[in-house]
Amino acid sequence: MQLLGERAEVVPFARFEEVFQALIRGKIDAAVIPVENTLAGSVHENYDHLLNYAVRITGETNVRIVHNLIAPPGVRFKDIRRVYSHPVALNQCLKFFSSHPNIERTTFYDTAGSVKMVMDEKSVDAAAIGSAAAAEMYGGHILKRSIAPKRTRPRRQSPKAWKTSLVFTTRNTPGALFRALSAFALRDLNMTKIESRPLHGKPLEYLFYLDFIGREDEPKVQNALRHLSELADFYRVLGSYPKGD
Amino acid sequence: MQLLGERAEVVPFARFEEVFQALIRGKIDAAVIPVENTLAGSVHENYDHLLNYAVRITGETNVRIVHNLIAPPGVRFKDIRRVYSHPVALNQCLKFFSSHPNIERTTFYDTAGSVKMVMDEKSVDAAAIGSAAAAEMYGGHILKRSIAPKRTRPRRQSPKAWKTSLVFTTRNTPGALFRALSAFALRDLNMTKIESRPLHGKPLEYLFYLDFIGREDEPKVQNALRHLSELADFYRVLGSYPKGD
Repeated sequence: MQLLGERAEVVPFARFEEVFQALIRGKIDAAVIPVENTLAGSVHENYDHLLNYAVRITGETNVRIVHNLIAPPGVRFKDIRRVYSHPVALNQCLKFFSSHPNIERTTFYDTAGSVKMVMDEKSVDAAAIGSAAAAEMYGGHILKRSIAPKRTRPRRQSPKAWKTSLVFTTRNTPGALFRALSAFALRDLNMTKIESRPLHGKPLEYLFYLDFIGREDEPKVQNALRHLSELADFYRVLGSYPKGD
Repeated sequence: MQLLGERAEVVPFARFEEVFQALIRGKIDAAVIPVENTLAGSVHENYDHLLNYAVRITGETNVRIVHNLIAPPGVRFKDIRRVYSHPVALNQCLKFFSSHPNIERTTFYDTAGSVKMVMDEKSVDAAAIGSAAAAEMYGGHILKRSIAPKRTRPRRQSPKAWKTSLVFTTRNTPGALFRALSAFALRDLNMTKIESRPLHGKPLEYLFYLDFIGREDEPKVQNALRHLSELADFYRVLGSYPKGD
């Protein structure tokens, strides 16, 4: 909805791979998948799918995570003794916990899972930290909304900012990564993400994820990509798209 | 055990943060924590703890993940219709699934959780993919061992290779990361990990994780760090230690 408004029909799939399969078979016109999460980092599975399927990134949006305190209906805030959630979500609510020192923190594998668990167990003295969507899905009651400090709003980049995402591999030789990045830095292309990922079964090679501000058809981006092709063993542009707010 | 042999007494804690607290309070002599996982990437929570607690990395080891097919005792391989596990673990066993096309793959939030689930549900036609440790913990029976292709063994780096891990921040200005990396590349220090992480609440700043081959007290590493201090807003060496096999 952030990207397309209300006009798009939403078609859910159980696994990310099924989303990609539906896309290449033409069963759906477009797909929305997560590639980065402030709690868990990059979603490597989807980077793999972006490499394995002949698809392109055409847009980007950021979804703000709002942490709410959620318990089964009828449970009151003063009853709460324990709170379950993902450890990073718990850490993002440190001010809440220091204002309520009698409430114990307990880690759980993810935020939505912690909401499901307190609902399944019909807890009378436990709550979970999760999204309003998780509260609605599992029938939880929101005891306190937005208990983590709000993020400052990003300053808007120029309204026409475009971003390009690519992956490339280099051999693990001294300076190989630095030389590859020089293709972008020497042309004043601002890198907004760089991440190395060890290649499965190839211990001395790395896959890199790179995002930079620029549009694939700009001359300096074309020059940077031609330069990269001299330096990297392999590269592929995943897409070039308007930067998300 | 890989790092210290059998002589160390093992003290478990429920949460990573408790491990760090026990360490700084002197309740334990050393701690072993995960910082990277081939399935899920970097463990950002532990990078945060490494920054927040006055501790140093003093060693490193790699633990090979062996994927086993696990079911409740009494269930036979020919009964299996569905297999649950983390999506990346399922993907790493693609050859197994293409040899057994009648077995359906179903994703689960993690490998050990999928083992617990098939045991809790006393499944008669479902199995999970997980470690031998998870099978033992939840009483599962290993139907097939090591169903993912074995990784090629890493070629040994020189036996005296040391690695240094650090974090630093730069402002999001064009070229800032590239200049910071030049401190290492210009001294032929081989980077083995680089990862940008958006800073919570500071949308135009990034935290970088960097590993390179070298020992903190070598002159060229000292020079690189002095150079980095001119270029980065903040940096901290997390430790310098013998590279793990």
